[in-house]
Amino acid sequence: MDHPERRNALSRGMLRDLHKALTEVADSSATGVVLAAHGPVFCSGHDFADVLAADSDGIRELLELCTGVMQLIHSVPQVVVARVHALATAAGCQLVATCDLAVAGESAGFALPGGRGGWFCHTPAVPVARSIGRKRLMEMALTGDVIDARTAADWGLINRAVPDGELDAAVEELLLRATRGSPASKALGKRALYAQLDRPETDAYEIAGEVMAASSQSPAAREGIASFLGKRTPEWPE
Amino acid sequence: MDHPERRNALSRGMLRDLHKALTEVADSSATGVVLAAHGPVFCSGHDFADVLAADSDGIRELLELCTGVMQLIHSVPQVVVARVHALATAAGCQLVATCDLAVAGESAGFALPGGRGGWFCHTPAVPVARSIGRKRLMEMALTGDVIDARTAADWGLINRAVPDGELDAAVEELLLRATRGSPASKALGKRALYAQLDRPETDAYEIAGEVMAASSQSPAAREGIASFLGKRTPEWPE
Amino acid sequence: MDHPERRNALSRGMLRDLHKALTEVADSSATGVVLAAHGPVFCSGHDFADVLAADSDGIRELLELCTGVMQLIHSVPQVVVARVHALATAAGCQLVATCDLAVAGESAGFALPGGRGGWFCHTPAVPVARSIGRKRLMEMALTGDVIDARTAADWGLINRAVPDGELDAAVEELLLRATRGSPASKALGKRALYAQLDRPETDAYEIAGEVMAASSQSPAAREGIASFLGKRTPEWPE
Repeated sequence: MDHPERRNALSRGMLRDLHKALTEVADSSATGVVLAAHGPVFCSGHDFADVLAADSDGIRELLELCTGVMQLIHSVPQVVVARVHALATAAGCQLVATCDLAVAGESAGFALPGGRGGWFCHTPAVPVARSIGRKRLMEMALTGDVIDARTAADWGLINRAVPDGELDAAVEELLLRATRGSPASKALGKRALYAQLDRPETDAYEIAGEVMAASSQSPAAREGIASFLGKRTPEWPE
Repeated sequence: MDHPERRNALSRGMLRDLHKALTEVADSSATGVVLAAHGPVFCSGHDFADVLAADSDGIRELLELCTGVMQLIHSVPQVVVARVHALATAAGCQLVATCDLAVAGESAGFALPGGRGGWFCHTPAVPVARSIGRKRLMEMALTGDVIDARTAADWGLINRAVPDGELDAAVEELLLRATRGSPASKALGKRALYAQLDRPETDAYEIAGEVMAASSQSPAAREGIASFLGKRTPEWPE
Repeated sequence: MDHPERRNALSRGMLRDLHKALTEVADSSATGVVLAAHGPVFCSGHDFADVLAADSDGIRELLELCTGVMQLIHSVPQVVVARVHALATAAGCQLVATCDLAVAGESAGFALPGGRGGWFCHTPAVPVARSIGRKRLMEMALTGDVIDARTAADWGLINRAVPDGELDAAVEELLLRATRGSPASKALGKRALYAQLDRPETDAYEIAGEVMAASSQSPAAREGIASFLGKRTPEWPE
């Protein structure tokens, strides 16, 4: 995200750019994606200029576009890591909570500020609620105050907080570890994980069991098991 | 709660008093509620005298009354903070887990003791299960032992534990931060949060997206955005 | 589990043995179960020899057998504690996540390694996802790397990590505390907990309220309340 002067706000244009970039990368041979930003703010959420001009239908359409980007992050075959160097607020915080993994520099911060104003971070709270405990969610959503990167890591909103100077190295290290193995099985794996979350355990087992049985015959699974048993380096199929 | 000699047990009378107080406050202009207690115990849960005298239908009615109070805490427009100065057990622990926010003095403690006896903390475990991790829930429910305030904060059952002498200041500080902004949008915000929790993410987005689009045209939302863009102090409508 | 040379893999034979042992213990007067293992590995998950020989239907049947063991752990009347002295990976990690409680020695480790290979830990991730936060789940499932026992305790995957030499004492201490009280009410208690988890709160209250009202008239509940009010030691019915 490279609109520092707009605090990388998720304007319609920015959302369309993200959607396009994710759609393109989904068709590429890349195995990982780093979502990063330039400027003093990582991402400030929706663009109030868009919001002020819109009626309910316009807002609904804007939110559908935004939710579509979030769901695309979950459905692309790549592992998506947020590289958070600065403040991520509202839908910007939602973006971090939505990425598969997230690493932040110590000077980053996270907030759901809508509750301090006259609206409320309703949709940003959706993935945040699924990352941190309920009391902490209520504190973020009701106070709107910023939590620092160490607190975000402690609460589970991000994977880790590191000194600012080590951010790139930490992102790369985690992404390398997260992208080993067959890209095809990892793509299926992350989609199946999102499908089974937040459901009663028996429902989750039905989903996961079907996917696991079906994928057991895939070239990648057969190669993985055969190479393991044969004590050789696997060669992943496309 | 001011029945120290009864350990502030949630007798039928106490539950009716809480229901009445919450119903009244819901119609007031208050923006926050502090749930506090007097005496050596914050709240000991159901009154065993009520329980021993009741058949299954009586217990069901008692639990419906109790669950009704819990659901009222979630539906009142105010931010509800538990001020926990001492032991909160069984339905008393449920009460703390149900409040939007909770602050405890260091000498407070929390327990689901039913499992140490002949009954079980079935309903108290409902909101506790939604605040802390599963293994910790099982430990509380199966052992029945007390966890201290620091552990409760670490596990996410409460927002923070503070030295006893700083309890009032910490409650006030958190409540002030949590009640800034438009009361109307905050009331809608907390209800929408509770509605979207514990559901698959796509369902949660449908709920949150509809609420966010609908509320975008509210006087408070328009004033919040206009004052932000105009760099002036907002004036919240009633 | 006593197949050290097979790293205690969950072969069809091992799963049938576990199923049989759990079925037998369910009919016994035991109040607690310790799931322990011998050898350098606690449990390495599915046996790749089984997997390589099976078609999709064979895998489905294997997974149903495995899921059946997991669900039996939740439905037996006893409190089940995992005593984890060494590495628990894939379905072995699933086993630990499934037990009601878990204690690990400091040299234990936990991993969902499928994502590093060509398959994926789809079903093992089901109970792990219900024990730890989402970002941490994604890190375990996507990287496949081992987390140590201290990290597992911090994340809530296990109840505690202790020095290796104190493992037996810590397991016994926790199990004793978790098995006090009426066995009948505890058996109902753990089943009802698993039934109400991962559901919207109103659904959970319906389940827990019905169970609590129905069980209020049980001999154990009556004895528990009467002995508490009479300040005497309870005598639990069978």
